[in-house]
Amino acid sequence: MSSPLPDAALDQLFRTARTYNGWLPKEVTDEQIHRIYELAKFGPTSANSSPMRLVFVKSPDAKQRLKPFLSEGNLEKTMQAPVTAIVATDFAFYEKLPKLFTHADARSWFVGNETLIQSTGVRNGSLQGAYLIMAARALGLDCGPMSGFDQAGVDAEFFAGTQVKSNFLVNIGYGDPGKNLFERQPRLDFDEAAQIA
Amino acid sequence: MSSPLPDAALDQLFRTARTYNGWLPKEVTDEQIHRIYELAKFGPTSANSSPMRLVFVKSPDAKQRLKPFLSEGNLEKTMQAPVTAIVATDFAFYEKLPKLFTHADARSWFVGNETLIQSTGVRNGSLQGAYLIMAARALGLDCGPMSGFDQAGVDAEFFAGTQVKSNFLVNIGYGDPGKNLFERQPRLDFDEAAQIA
Repeated sequence: MSSPLPDAALDQLFRTARTYNGWLPKEVTDEQIHRIYELAKFGPTSANSSPMRLVFVKSPDAKQRLKPFLSEGNLEKTMQAPVTAIVATDFAFYEKLPKLFTHADARSWFVGNETLIQSTGVRNGSLQGAYLIMAARALGLDCGPMSGFDQAGVDAEFFAGTQVKSNFLVNIGYGDPGKNLFERQPRLDFDEAAQIA
Repeated sequence: MSSPLPDAALDQLFRTARTYNGWLPKEVTDEQIHRIYELAKFGPTSANSSPMRLVFVKSPDAKQRLKPFLSEGNLEKTMQAPVTAIVATDFAFYEKLPKLFTHADARSWFVGNETLIQSTGVRNGSLQGAYLIMAARALGLDCGPMSGFDQAGVDAEFFAGTQVKSNFLVNIGYGDPGKNLFERQPRLDFDEAAQIA
């Protein structure tokens, strides 16, 4: 049985963590990128389906490939960010279930069931995207998630010939609180969003 | 700028956290439920849209209302769990944007755009479901997320007359490692799921 994490950790993960729009000039190393994945991969998914696929866009060349597909409001901050993760979903995820789920033939639950493939891929790919954000924050990094981009364009540039479709983008680095940081926006109170029955 | 959390925290959140199928007989208090929400609400969503809605099913009466809609494999553990969260999405989420997003008239981006409402609701409702899982773990609780249930049935019983649709369920409590805990299943290696470009 575990104890609650200390307040400083809860702050870092949730309460004082912010979506950054500007970045300090400090590299995110390949080793840090691997560490983010090695945490995020453990988050739970349906039948361990693990449909998230990632491109960590880091080199100037790769940033130029991404640039034409960014919305205007996301352009400058994304070009400036140390790394931009393309969080994507592989809708052929079920082909890996013989490795990922050893208790039953889970692959057979999906083959030919396009509705289940879609709903499982979309739900669990997004869950994993959130685990990625939380993993980066847990490692002392800041995030700037975005959904304003040309998904079809990114898919054609980065995932042609596959069943992989982009879901959202996440800038990752060390946030610059002096640059375009929004005021913290309100959240819904418990009673507006939740009930105990 | 933050530091990486200590290894014990990374273990609790990711590495040794497990999906539990059996629960110790120890209550989850209403105060703990509120604390989970008060952390999870801070996770980032697109335009702060915050579409997740929650029913924390705790009373025996409420458990009986949920029971008919559980798949056989999820029945016993869910009836035994101290709390079962119905993680749902309000597809009328944009009506709250005048409160949640004060920088622009974000409501107008959604009204009449059913495709954007659907994709934003589904993606961000699932992100928030993952924040909920991470928040519960951060508070020392264990989770058992599930997608095996009759969504339409749950929606009719708990969300009739609204635009709220169930997404997945999460049992929450203190996991019993001696009861039906699966062996840890493999995850995809970095190179199978990700690349640095």
